[in-house]
Amino acid sequence: MIEEKDTSGTVLYDDGDHRFIWLGTDTHGKKGVVQTMQYLIVDKGRGVLLDPGGVHLFPRVVAAASRYISIDRIDTIFFSHQDPDVSSGIALWLGVTSAKIYIAELWMRFIPHFGIVDQTRIAPIEGAGKSLKLASGAELVFVPTHYMHSPAAFSLFDKRAGILFSGDVGGAVFPEGDETMYADDFKAHIKYIEGFHKRLIASNSVARRWVDNVRRLAPTMIAPQHGSIYRGDSVGAYLDWLSALRCGIDDLDALYRM
Amino acid sequence: MIEEKDTSGTVLYDDGDHRFIWLGTDTHGKKGVVQTMQYLIVDKGRGVLLDPGGVHLFPRVVAAASRYISIDRIDTIFFSHQDPDVSSGIALWLGVTSAKIYIAELWMRFIPHFGIVDQTRIAPIEGAGKSLKLASGAELVFVPTHYMHSPAAFSLFDKRAGILFSGDVGGAVFPEGDETMYADDFKAHIKYIEGFHKRLIASNSVARRWVDNVRRLAPTMIAPQHGSIYRGDSVGAYLDWLSALRCGIDDLDALYRM
Repeated sequence: MIEEKDTSGTVLYDDGDHRFIWLGTDTHGKKGVVQTMQYLIVDKGRGVLLDPGGVHLFPRVVAAASRYISIDRIDTIFFSHQDPDVSSGIALWLGVTSAKIYIAELWMRFIPHFGIVDQTRIAPIEGAGKSLKLASGAELVFVPTHYMHSPAAFSLFDKRAGILFSGDVGGAVFPEGDETMYADDFKAHIKYIEGFHKRLIASNSVARRWVDNVRRLAPTMIAPQHGSIYRGDSVGAYLDWLSALRCGIDDLDALYRM
Repeated sequence: MIEEKDTSGTVLYDDGDHRFIWLGTDTHGKKGVVQTMQYLIVDKGRGVLLDPGGVHLFPRVVAAASRYISIDRIDTIFFSHQDPDVSSGIALWLGVTSAKIYIAELWMRFIPHFGIVDQTRIAPIEGAGKSLKLASGAELVFVPTHYMHSPAAFSLFDKRAGILFSGDVGGAVFPEGDETMYADDFKAHIKYIEGFHKRLIASNSVARRWVDNVRRLAPTMIAPQHGSIYRGDSVGAYLDWLSALRCGIDDLDALYRM
């Protein structure tokens, strides 16, 4: 269970100049709608918002972020990929902030289909180099996450906080009431992540490659967009599990039976 | 060039009881926004709409469809997958029709993130069986298209018309002014489809499997959501090309360099 006090946010890292904040989740969500989690990085008083989510979450995320920063101080919005639960609130966010939006280049031509969008405020991640530098000197590293599931997806590693925002990767789907904020008992957590990972990740080869890259970054936490946060021993346990997972097109026969 | 007279639609098949209609495209589209094509099947006076598209296309698609059928006679809407250019107009379409929406089961929990959506009107394709039967006896066959690109995607084969609606598969991206309605010169068409296919389709193994299934259906036309329609010799030429394409995770090194 996620306690009531946590639904409006928890600071995961704070060194004075730089904070990484979990903005809470909707434990009283609508039945049958996948739950999402949002994150906010505050660096020297400026904000970076990660996967702020769809239209119907907008009021809750504005309220949660406002506890930590004035909304007009959000300069940067990061979209891990193009799905509706990640990015369909884009037109609303462009309205209340003057933020620049980073998303994989491939999706720049698709995102305007969500509504009226000022394309000059959308920047391709590939064109931004390997990372974004923030005012404190902190670095946000773009980690390729293609075909897990989206053909053009990125995770974002906050080097200073040691936290990897992993988008859909690591995501869990819980029966109502079973949500936990942290996946501290990894073995018990597998049942919530197995189906989601097997279906969304294109193959074991790509999962293994991502795990190799992530291990080199050595995050202390992995924070996905759905489910629970991995910390401590569960980070390594999750990476080991993922690198051995048979998924996606590894079993084409089951999927392409006609 | 697509001629002005074609932008509002063309009947691709008509036997009196059953029609398959291309609803046109936006040749004067906004720069940098991927173009989309919509299709309408009219069977004994009832309508099936295929990938009706995002919010900003809604007025144009309503107008185009209205030339062939009264909007309230559209009973069925098919979404090949979850992308914004396919489905972000869902709340608007639910408002003006009483149609039932078919989409892959995986996306049923994601689609409500586009806004207020009555979930009782969304049905999982996997639960509908192998095909939909229409009033005339015509059959619309669901063809698995997973990982091309979406992990849960379907094409739709209209057996009576002999036309396969392929969603993103077969899609082309044109420089402005180069659009053609049909890809009759397949060799000349490759330059418009190669980049799109290499990036969106997860691997050659899955492309080959799809091609094998499609060859068994023997469509006379392949009608994608972007680009041009394949007919005549270009159907076979396209399938041959696709089954040999190296794509997606086949070259992981290029994509996952960090």
